Amino acid sequence: MNIEELSTPAALVDVNRMTQNIERMQSRLKALGVRFRPHVKTTKCGPIVRAQIAAGAQGITVSTLKEAEQFFAMGIDDIVYAVGMAPTKLNQALALRRRGCGLKIMTDSVPSAEAIVAFGRSHGEAFDVWIEVDVDGHRSGIAPEDDLLLAVGRVLAEGGMKLGGVLAHAGSSYEYNTHGDLVRIAEQERAGSVRAAQRLRAVGLPCPVVSIGSTPTALSAERLDGVTEVRAGVYVMFDLVMHNVGVCKTSDIALSVLTTVIGHQEDKGWAIVDAGWMAMSRDRGTQPQQHDFGYGLVCSKEGEPLEHYVMTSANQEHGIVSRVGAVDQNIATRLPIGTLLRILPNHACATGAQHPAYQAIFEDGSVETWPRFYGW
Amino acid sequence: MNIEELSTPAALVDVNRMTQNIERMQSRLKALGVRFRPHVKTTKCGPIVRAQIAAGAQGITVSTLKEAEQFFAMGIDDIVYAVGMAPTKLNQALALRRRGCGLKIMTDSVPSAEAIVAFGRSHGEAFDVWIEVDVDGHRSGIAPEDDLLLAVGRVLAEGGMKLGGVLAHAGSSYEYNTHGDLVRIAEQERAGSVRAAQRLRAVGLPCPVVSIGSTPTALSAERLDGVTEVRAGVYVMFDLVMHNVGVCKTSDIALSVLTTVIGHQEDKGWAIVDAGWMAMSRDRGTQPQQHDFGYGLVCSKEGEPLEHYVMTSANQEHGIVSRVGAVDQNIATRLPIGTLLRILPNHACATGAQHPAYQAIFEDGSVETWPRFYGW
Repeated sequence: MNIEELSTPAALVDVNRMTQNIERMQSRLKALGVRFRPHVKTTKCGPIVRAQIAAGAQGITVSTLKEAEQFFAMGIDDIVYAVGMAPTKLNQALALRRRGCGLKIMTDSVPSAEAIVAFGRSHGEAFDVWIEVDVDGHRSGIAPEDDLLLAVGRVLAEGGMKLGGVLAHAGSSYEYNTHGDLVRIAEQERAGSVRAAQRLRAVGLPCPVVSIGSTPTALSAERLDGVTEVRAGVYVMFDLVMHNVGVCKTSDIALSVLTTVIGHQEDKGWAIVDAGWMAMSRDRGTQPQQHDFGYGLVCSKEGEPLEHYVMTSANQEHGIVSRVGAVDQNIATRLPIGTLLRILPNHACATGAQHPAYQAIFEDGSVETWPRFYGW
Repeated sequence: MNIEELSTPAALVDVNRMTQNIERMQSRLKALGVRFRPHVKTTKCGPIVRAQIAAGAQGITVSTLKEAEQFFAMGIDDIVYAVGMAPTKLNQALALRRRGCGLKIMTDSVPSAEAIVAFGRSHGEAFDVWIEVDVDGHRSGIAPEDDLLLAVGRVLAEGGMKLGGVLAHAGSSYEYNTHGDLVRIAEQERAGSVRAAQRLRAVGLPCPVVSIGSTPTALSAERLDGVTEVRAGVYVMFDLVMHNVGVCKTSDIALSVLTTVIGHQEDKGWAIVDAGWMAMSRDRGTQPQQHDFGYGLVCSKEGEPLEHYVMTSANQEHGIVSRVGAVDQNIATRLPIGTLLRILPNHACATGAQHPAYQAIFEDGSVETWPRFYGW
């Protein structure tokens, strides 16, 4: 099979670019002397995660217990569930651990830690629990200097759980676009997490793991002293948001959506394509950034960007492609009905999630279907 | 099973509200003297589409050929594929017709009509083709007064295809919020479509069907003279966008996402929940409207709105719930860890698409799982 035979819309993965992205992150973190634990929420795809492990990744990060179940079934047993533990999900976590999965769970509050202890004790299970640290105020976690950190640590340790470490994610790194700012936020993520670990250890609590990471900080950190592992997800594909942040070129973006031109409004300079928000996702992550790509950057079917052409608007199964700045009244000639285009996405995690499978494109032009899963 | 036993996040359907929404649309269109052909892209769910048919719908509208295949397999054979036909999909359409499906396809250009004719002739198939009419400039279609309409009609008729009718969708109706404007855009949709049909008939071309519709116009039209059928999709669930347009109350919205509180940032007045954009979708359709609901309106687990509480921000599997206007520093007491909430969505089509199944909630509190599909 080759690209011309695919039904559109389809989520294409450029295997060559993906492999380069995997090697870039892995070699960088090896040089910095830390383990790498990729976040598999970006792809939820067996062949891709196997490629990450084969390149040297140690364990994975997941955003749902379904991901943990699916990847444990594929033979991966070192798994961090990096969302605060809901008490109602403890049964599902217990079932995984009883089947031999080295699942780590996370908390950032006394009530949640108490729920874990109560459930663990009543089921004879010493859960491996990491405390979430807040290094930039962007979401959940406990600030490194907050004594709540020690209170949560004590609840877990005195309750017989294994206090496995601390975990932070500098999600605010997505808001920057200069190397200097990224280096600064990476150091803030490192220093805050190491400080939290030191405070736990200083009161006699164990904290073997210091886990940090996001794609921008992982690619910008200058030193990682005190850190034991890094997590990152979207680097495997990259996307236009990461391009605007400044950590990849458009020619590094491994994910695109293949689409067919199905009509035109010539006066307006529009080509209508058969990929809408169902294929691209509704993610408009580049809207607040310095370069707004609409719903995606238009490329030829070979993957060469058509400069200034973006998907300006999207309905469920319709996309409107047009030139930014000046109406292209020759668009029906330039992109006739039946033309295949690739659209680079704003956000690879969101776009991938809309598709039951990736179509992996190899350097010789051959295509393999790589299934992915969704849901909870 | 009841709601407390569901794993979160989950897409809930209030069956009582859904049934009322179905009855409201069906009885309205019956009174206006037209057939109703629901758009099933909103739910892609067998039990829901069966309920629409049982209430009186005649045939369905689809946005993908996969929907056509799935619903034809369930016994529905009167199907309009309401996206401009890509020449590369003609094989798939032919396979459906050869299996007995009364599939209708659509075009709005001479090259596309010619591709249909060429393919149809070489395979001995007289496709049933409808011409898309543009009544409001919002997307595809041919303006009623444009002679291209007649040119496309002639290509189809002279090429031996069945010219089945005209089809329009006043998508711009989503941009209004007063009854007067909605009545006006509904009349514009009606009049433009009827005019297009008259022009085709005046030159001796057949045009038996005049198909129009969108949820706002279908619920606002005062007369439908000359129209033979109406299409609408989101009415079956409704959502916050439709609430802002003015065609439903929040108490009509049948779809919500069940989520669990997993943490807090008390100083900021945040509750963190386990539904992020993966569960809600990235749709921010209420952002440009008069009332911006963020990623959704927060309700109690029984479905009562918590006034002024919305999901203000969303990451992949995290939502941040907060009070609009004034920080709620008691949020950890008001919504403790483990609290179940329902979030009403901006856009039911986009939110539903994120979930492998709906959890249908009946009036007695019992729950049934209704699978839905995705992909192409």
